[in-house]
Amino acid sequence: MALNQWTTKRWSVKEAVAGCVRHGLPAIGLWRQNVAEQGLDETVPLVKHAGLRVSSLCRGGFLTSPGFEEDNRRAVDEAAALNAACLVMVVGGLPGVVPGEPLGEISRDLRSARNQVADALALLAPYAAQRGVRLALEPLHPMYCADRAVLSTLGQALDLAAPYPPETVGVVVDTFHVWWDPQVFEQIERAGREGRIASYQVCDFLSPLPADALLGRGMMGDGVIDFGPLTEAVAAAGYAGDVEVEIFNADIWAADPDEVVATMKDRFARLVVTRS
Amino acid sequence: MALNQWTTKRWSVKEAVAGCVRHGLPAIGLWRQNVAEQGLDETVPLVKHAGLRVSSLCRGGFLTSPGFEEDNRRAVDEAAALNAACLVMVVGGLPGVVPGEPLGEISRDLRSARNQVADALALLAPYAAQRGVRLALEPLHPMYCADRAVLSTLGQALDLAAPYPPETVGVVVDTFHVWWDPQVFEQIERAGREGRIASYQVCDFLSPLPADALLGRGMMGDGVIDFGPLTEAVAAAGYAGDVEVEIFNADIWAADPDEVVATMKDRFARLVVTRS
Repeated sequence: MALNQWTTKRWSVKEAVAGCVRHGLPAIGLWRQNVAEQGLDETVPLVKHAGLRVSSLCRGGFLTSPGFEEDNRRAVDEAAALNAACLVMVVGGLPGVVPGEPLGEISRDLRSARNQVADALALLAPYAAQRGVRLALEPLHPMYCADRAVLSTLGQALDLAAPYPPETVGVVVDTFHVWWDPQVFEQIERAGREGRIASYQVCDFLSPLPADALLGRGMMGDGVIDFGPLTEAVAAAGYAGDVEVEIFNADIWAADPDEVVATMKDRFARLVVTRS
Repeated sequence: MALNQWTTKRWSVKEAVAGCVRHGLPAIGLWRQNVAEQGLDETVPLVKHAGLRVSSLCRGGFLTSPGFEEDNRRAVDEAAALNAACLVMVVGGLPGVVPGEPLGEISRDLRSARNQVADALALLAPYAAQRGVRLALEPLHPMYCADRAVLSTLGQALDLAAPYPPETVGVVVDTFHVWWDPQVFEQIERAGREGRIASYQVCDFLSPLPADALLGRGMMGDGVIDFGPLTEAVAAAGYAGDVEVEIFNADIWAADPDEVVATMKDRFARLVVTRS
């Protein structure tokens, strides 16, 4: 089990690294803005001396926005410096749509936005390969299609990854985003066959959703997801990497991070890991 | 263009029928609870004398809840009495999940819930056929998978419909629910080929979503959907029935229904109908 840093959002990188050590977690998923606050030069030795793996760096992407190329090259450099297992890519929504803001001038051409993402990937993948970084395409729940990711299913992510070597472009399986998909099990199996599973992230899907749908992610067991079959499918597909717990949730962010990690470990052991 | 009654929620059946006549709309989508308030015996001649088609009766379904069979047989009877083009089926969520309420004792077994829906359909389809009613399976946006419909994509709806004659079991194409689906155009084409399109409903997808995600449906043009390609695909697939405007939206419900219908007609002409 790995801690994705945003589950304990109040913790700085330094605090989160110490928290992982204190709770015996072997890996951490870091966020770029937190790494920037700590300083990349400080973060690299911090993680190294703590003996932690960096299970992911979150996040590159937003490939449908101007200026994406420079920012994503920087993200690749940071992932390389941190020796992160992957750089998570949230590919971006419809051009002009800003998450949480009223609509201004936008493009409604979804097919063209999806093509833009494919074109941007063609530009970035060679750079990632050169730096030894694996891009991990994350399909997001379809409710975020307009504002965060026009990449909505695992099948679509695998189609997008297909032209590239699996060690350069993989996919993220995040239970929150994919649990509803009638094709999820066949696509997890395919992702394994194609060697593409770069990350497995877990958190629950709350029902009812809170007022801010972005914060509909819950502690495992507090929502509607049956984790067992998904974890088993990911394991059967050959994924043996870290399993990150990544929760965006106002109540969890307000709670004592040490208690959050303790609950997370308990729920993980009871609900997420497979018996086999 | 047809008015789905819930777009002008304040109107009773009698008022909505008069509204359709006043605004020159040839068809109306009715809701069961409103029909019950007006009385079925009163509604049948009201609609008939107004010269309106009933484009749909909303809704049957919730097939994962106890007592579904009796309620759905009643819904079929009502649809038959109203000579509705179809009975819209919102198939229900995970057993035990109540929309808008905190989770109590629920089942998290999504596969089994989906099988339950298939079993229930096997029970209901012969009765619908006998009464000459067409059941219209409505895939709902995946954000409603837990609480309203485990049927999440058009492809899944077509698979579910496959064992039955197309005049007994069809599907609903609702722009709000399907616009994000990477397979939507191929599945609309398939739906046409299989003779299954029972209803085409339009409304926009708002971004950001409001606090109550159920009310994220907007007037055409207020959200992120590009209606042209979807309408063209549905037309190319051979659908020549009524196009219902169905909007759940707090602001629209608060507005003067006559103004809502006027806006709806204007937006429909500018954004939804195809040039061809």
